[in-house]
Amino acid sequence: MLIRSLLHRAIHEGTILLRNHQKCSTVWRKTHHCSALIYREHSHDIQTVRMEPLLLPPVGDRSVRLHMLAAPVNPADMNMIQGSYPILCPLPAVGGNEGVGEVIEVGSDVTSLRPGDWVVPIDAGFGTWRTGAVCEEEEVITVPKDISLLGAATIFVNPCTAYRMLHDFQTLTPGCTVIQNASNSAVGQAVIQIAAALGLKTINIIRDRPNCAELIDELQSLGADYVVTEEEVMSTGLHRVFEEVPKPKLGLNCVGGLSGGLVFSNLDYGGTMVTYGGMAKRPLQIPAKSFIFHNVTLKGFWLTQWKRKHKEDKAQLNAMLNAVCDLMRGGQLSAPHCVQTPFHQYTHALQATVQSHGRKHVLIM
Amino acid sequence: MLIRSLLHRAIHEGTILLRNHQKCSTVWRKTHHCSALIYREHSHDIQTVRMEPLLLPPVGDRSVRLHMLAAPVNPADMNMIQGSYPILCPLPAVGGNEGVGEVIEVGSDVTSLRPGDWVVPIDAGFGTWRTGAVCEEEEVITVPKDISLLGAATIFVNPCTAYRMLHDFQTLTPGCTVIQNASNSAVGQAVIQIAAALGLKTINIIRDRPNCAELIDELQSLGADYVVTEEEVMSTGLHRVFEEVPKPKLGLNCVGGLSGGLVFSNLDYGGTMVTYGGMAKRPLQIPAKSFIFHNVTLKGFWLTQWKRKHKEDKAQLNAMLNAVCDLMRGGQLSAPHCVQTPFHQYTHALQATVQSHGRKHVLIM
Repeated sequence: MLIRSLLHRAIHEGTILLRNHQKCSTVWRKTHHCSALIYREHSHDIQTVRMEPLLLPPVGDRSVRLHMLAAPVNPADMNMIQGSYPILCPLPAVGGNEGVGEVIEVGSDVTSLRPGDWVVPIDAGFGTWRTGAVCEEEEVITVPKDISLLGAATIFVNPCTAYRMLHDFQTLTPGCTVIQNASNSAVGQAVIQIAAALGLKTINIIRDRPNCAELIDELQSLGADYVVTEEEVMSTGLHRVFEEVPKPKLGLNCVGGLSGGLVFSNLDYGGTMVTYGGMAKRPLQIPAKSFIFHNVTLKGFWLTQWKRKHKEDKAQLNAMLNAVCDLMRGGQLSAPHCVQTPFHQYTHALQATVQSHGRKHVLIM
Repeated sequence: MLIRSLLHRAIHEGTILLRNHQKCSTVWRKTHHCSALIYREHSHDIQTVRMEPLLLPPVGDRSVRLHMLAAPVNPADMNMIQGSYPILCPLPAVGGNEGVGEVIEVGSDVTSLRPGDWVVPIDAGFGTWRTGAVCEEEEVITVPKDISLLGAATIFVNPCTAYRMLHDFQTLTPGCTVIQNASNSAVGQAVIQIAAALGLKTINIIRDRPNCAELIDELQSLGADYVVTEEEVMSTGLHRVFEEVPKPKLGLNCVGGLSGGLVFSNLDYGGTMVTYGGMAKRPLQIPAKSFIFHNVTLKGFWLTQWKRKHKEDKAQLNAMLNAVCDLMRGGQLSAPHCVQTPFHQYTHALQATVQSHGRKHVLIM
């Protein structure tokens, strides 16, 4: 939380300090400033987000100064700006929750980080859309530098969501089946790849679309065992699939509505469906018999909450990051296809994310 | 399963054997027969259920002969006759799944039962609507004789469902809150009483009805802390209730549709809703945010399945029955208000159950 109050003060005082800085540089020469994408009110108008200069607080004994390298624009970031997310930052705030930075300077009591390390923020609300930051040592965690920059910038939301959902809800052994919708999303693609690495079979539901064959090829090249459209599941079911693989013990739902129904209605007896998104903005409709006679369990997953619960448990956080990095190094998990956007062209990245079209945009600082 | 095949054979051969029995009683004098309510096809017409004489098989080394004393008519019994229940018996079949019998005769290798004991069948499909039965020792379990006959006849479905749901899904300590709908059902009333005995607070949702004040009094006299109509919850919410008691960690849903929504939407963060019925015949509608941001878990419960899973675990079965009997003896759990129906007037009891009006009917043999 410290970074937020420092940020808040810095944004308020920044302009004056910077002005002073320009006038009498001898007084301020040990301070640093950065450029940051700041919003001062909640709004659906992306013009509310503006690049502004921001003075960084001095590096304390237990804090570090980072140079941010790359930060994605995720849909949740836009929801925070719009004020519709369950976590909101005090205003004014710097946008962005995920990203990778390089440690430039460390305080005298910092033990876990060294200059040159790559780090990612643990909690949401960090404000990653900025060129520099000063934060407490405990607010970030290292990621290895032998994975790609884009991989590091996008490691801690989507691949980790996929990783946790595949590990925390059912005991899955090689040969078990997982069914999911939103299979072409960043999480969906990570699920396909991590599941394949674990020896699990995946049934991947996609919306029907013009370039369907192309998408099926793409997901199969990632390791998808079955890719089926919602229409196919509704019209012919998955009987043929279940002649080859067991019914899924785990279902992952990022859509809700009818599509969520296709996931849970195809679960094995005693299976669990985990909901981590509601893209269709329609509720799930669950008949009583699914619970009573098929013993289906419905749960939710939100990585932000998981990380808050485990933020002190560095061993657990590191185990997850190391496992995901191992998959990246081994070529079993590729970074999502991203559009790399120069930081100053941020408006384009925000606009594209709000309009939900195309690839994930990653700001390169 | 043995009893079912014996039954099946007995029903097929019964008439001939009984006829023989009448003609040459010296040959058959060690056999016994009973009257049973038998259906030979699945139908919504209750006339398909008829009282017929039934020859009982001889008592084997590990089997026992019972005189059935009392057996309720539950809605699930009618669904089995109609063919719409997930468990169906081979036809022809004797109706009824719950009831209490007295042991009359035991086989030479029977160790756990003695003549005079009261027993209840463990599994569904026993066919309890009959005056006598021969079954394996392991198919029944004793209940103490110092509880009421009606209490014993109705102990193993509704009170045990309430007991398990209050024990198996959340760790509840005195002062915790439970919310339920269908609060006036037999399970609902058992939930109120068992929860009160455990020191839990209950919020009990009922449908609005003409005799509302009377019903509220009745449920409060059982120990209900709050009784609210669906309309009240929808219009004014439960804010005032939550000024006095914590939000519920456990919700019990026997209705589905809107009413189920009133249960889960008032759960505490991380709460669990258990669905054990779908009286409204409408699906639950669950928005994604309930799962993701409120961390609600939805599960189902079906006592029949629980008993099948634990049928070998007599210690666990006895622990549950003893706990429920203790509550009955202590006056903390009363038998549901029943209409006692003489066995030969079974048509009235079946009709009333199908039409879902009034109290539970219990056949007295």
